[in-house]
Amino acid sequence: MTEEMVVTPWETKGIIDYEKLIKEFGTEKLGEDLIKRIEKQAGKSSHFLRRKIYFSHRGLKEILDAFDKGEEFVLYTGRGPSGTTHIGHLMPYLFTKYLQDAFKAKLYYELTDDEKFFTKENLSLKECTGFAYDNALDFIACGFKPENTKIIIDTKDIGLLYPIAARVAEKTTFSTAKAVFGFSNETNIGWIFFPAVQASVAFLESEIKGKKVRCLIPCGIEQDPYWRIARDVAEKIGYYKPGAIHGKFLPGLKEGGKMSASDPSSAIWVTDSEKEVEKKVGNAFTGGRATVEEQRKLGGNPEVCNVHKYYFFLFEQDDEKLEKLYDDCRKGKILCGECKKELAKRVNAFLKEHMEKREEAKKHLQEYLLK
Amino acid sequence: MTEEMVVTPWETKGIIDYEKLIKEFGTEKLGEDLIKRIEKQAGKSSHFLRRKIYFSHRGLKEILDAFDKGEEFVLYTGRGPSGTTHIGHLMPYLFTKYLQDAFKAKLYYELTDDEKFFTKENLSLKECTGFAYDNALDFIACGFKPENTKIIIDTKDIGLLYPIAARVAEKTTFSTAKAVFGFSNETNIGWIFFPAVQASVAFLESEIKGKKVRCLIPCGIEQDPYWRIARDVAEKIGYYKPGAIHGKFLPGLKEGGKMSASDPSSAIWVTDSEKEVEKKVGNAFTGGRATVEEQRKLGGNPEVCNVHKYYFFLFEQDDEKLEKLYDDCRKGKILCGECKKELAKRVNAFLKEHMEKREEAKKHLQEYLLK
Repeated sequence: MTEEMVVTPWETKGIIDYEKLIKEFGTEKLGEDLIKRIEKQAGKSSHFLRRKIYFSHRGLKEILDAFDKGEEFVLYTGRGPSGTTHIGHLMPYLFTKYLQDAFKAKLYYELTDDEKFFTKENLSLKECTGFAYDNALDFIACGFKPENTKIIIDTKDIGLLYPIAARVAEKTTFSTAKAVFGFSNETNIGWIFFPAVQASVAFLESEIKGKKVRCLIPCGIEQDPYWRIARDVAEKIGYYKPGAIHGKFLPGLKEGGKMSASDPSSAIWVTDSEKEVEKKVGNAFTGGRATVEEQRKLGGNPEVCNVHKYYFFLFEQDDEKLEKLYDDCRKGKILCGECKKELAKRVNAFLKEHMEKREEAKKHLQEYLLK
Repeated sequence: MTEEMVVTPWETKGIIDYEKLIKEFGTEKLGEDLIKRIEKQAGKSSHFLRRKIYFSHRGLKEILDAFDKGEEFVLYTGRGPSGTTHIGHLMPYLFTKYLQDAFKAKLYYELTDDEKFFTKENLSLKECTGFAYDNALDFIACGFKPENTKIIIDTKDIGLLYPIAARVAEKTTFSTAKAVFGFSNETNIGWIFFPAVQASVAFLESEIKGKKVRCLIPCGIEQDPYWRIARDVAEKIGYYKPGAIHGKFLPGLKEGGKMSASDPSSAIWVTDSEKEVEKKVGNAFTGGRATVEEQRKLGGNPEVCNVHKYYFFLFEQDDEKLEKLYDDCRKGKILCGECKKELAKRVNAFLKEHMEKREEAKKHLQEYLLK
């Protein structure tokens, strides 16, 4: 029995059908034309685009058209700080860095400590704010520069956001918020207001500059409901509708589902030791056969294999090499053990470098924080 | 046909039955014992107390008991800035000043520009914030000193309030807010969140001091729903329940109802000219008879007379003199014309002094603003 697909900003479960999500959310498929335009501007291809890891959008074409006519835009991404960072969190940062380099765009990164406090039962506001400062380091470690990147921590920066959020909120009825987010009578009033806070960052640059500035939001598809609200009210309050480019979820190591912060063993955390990584990758769900003999004879199934997905999403960005890995698996030329060992090696190398950059980031955090 | 009584933070209409409000709101009647305790501390009586203009409370006894044991408390009052100040707005300021002097208490004065924006259809946030700075001058003009009085403007000071408001909000479901405030599906999400902002100021001193500090809120009875929310969550989030002391409304000049910001001719504004005051008082609804002859013979009815109420609420604070005025009216010794002329004179003298102090306040506004 398969679990029903649920994709909201606060919960993801079941087998994700991305085609269905595009229909359900009413977004647009990210077509080859738009991918080519981004890659051309970047001067290089991205596996995130080639492999349709970013697969959907809202309003991207308008933003690119305006850009071609000389109109800059800002990027905006973020994270809900409810714990340590895992590899699934880093993926959108890396794609955002690619976009930032391509378009020389200013970037706002929002840490929604208020949201996590409103939506998670067992976290205090202080804990969420603490995670925000911690998560900021992982973000910085992805290579962003303070000259064109500003980190927003909601409770710290609400002074700037609230006057914008208030104008979003004033145009958003409970009825709308309920329809978009599934709020009920039991939802707390902080959570109900929060969509206005998240939307507000999309308009922050316009507010600061005193003129309309476009905004593109690279994010997980589960964040899309916020941009529906933001786009609904944007023009009514004197801003451009923000655009979004939506990514898929890095799967968890266990069968199905998203890499989940609520199940520590399903994810690889940036703080995991080499041994922990080896163990987690070693225990990952794969498309392997019951015995070595069977696998040599019949081949594995990379389609359902989480180890293969890790290569696909991040750890083998060369398409030819990925294809070879796929074929070798299919043909039984490579066994799960080898494949896992290699992945663990790559993950550990990646994390080693990440943690060094993260350490370095501690010295520079202040430079990134919004005034 | 009498209009149904409606008393909410956003609307007051009909003939106000204060006894009924105590029952409906579930507050306590302000008894002689508590009045005596306040007056003893003040070292002088107040017509606001003697005449039961402040008539109801929540939790006042606990605050006075704690005070007697050496525990200080802060005062908190405010205003929704949706226009110029009228005399009805000044009344609670004057009573608050009396309390502040009596208890040597620090005072927070909140200007809820966000609330007015959320609840008034035709005001922009910028306009509400503008009114906040304007209204602050009328508040200062009532004699408050910057040493122990801080003015909060919500959109300006949300940085301090939001982390507290978030904790109030997290403990308040839509269901509760709906029951207390009558919110509907059409209410905007800013308005729904706002009660948490208004409640937050009751806990601000505790937050700043890092220890529990009691708070007493002198306000119009229509503000009570906010304190119900604040009291509900206070102990759950580590604060004392705030207390409140509730006042009656200064009536409008027309028959029945509150002095209303939405009907300019029903109120005397601080900016009214002497001539305007004379005209408005001259046109006020009184308990006079149809002709001078009848009035001389039968006497007037001060019970229903708005001119008499102005004396009662503010412009004749000497009980003996007020009684004489009442008797003279009853006996037909004084006619409405004389009575109105005298009131207009007093109002104009009051406003002249107020406007001078208001002018002076402009130089000192910055000293009162919260950091």
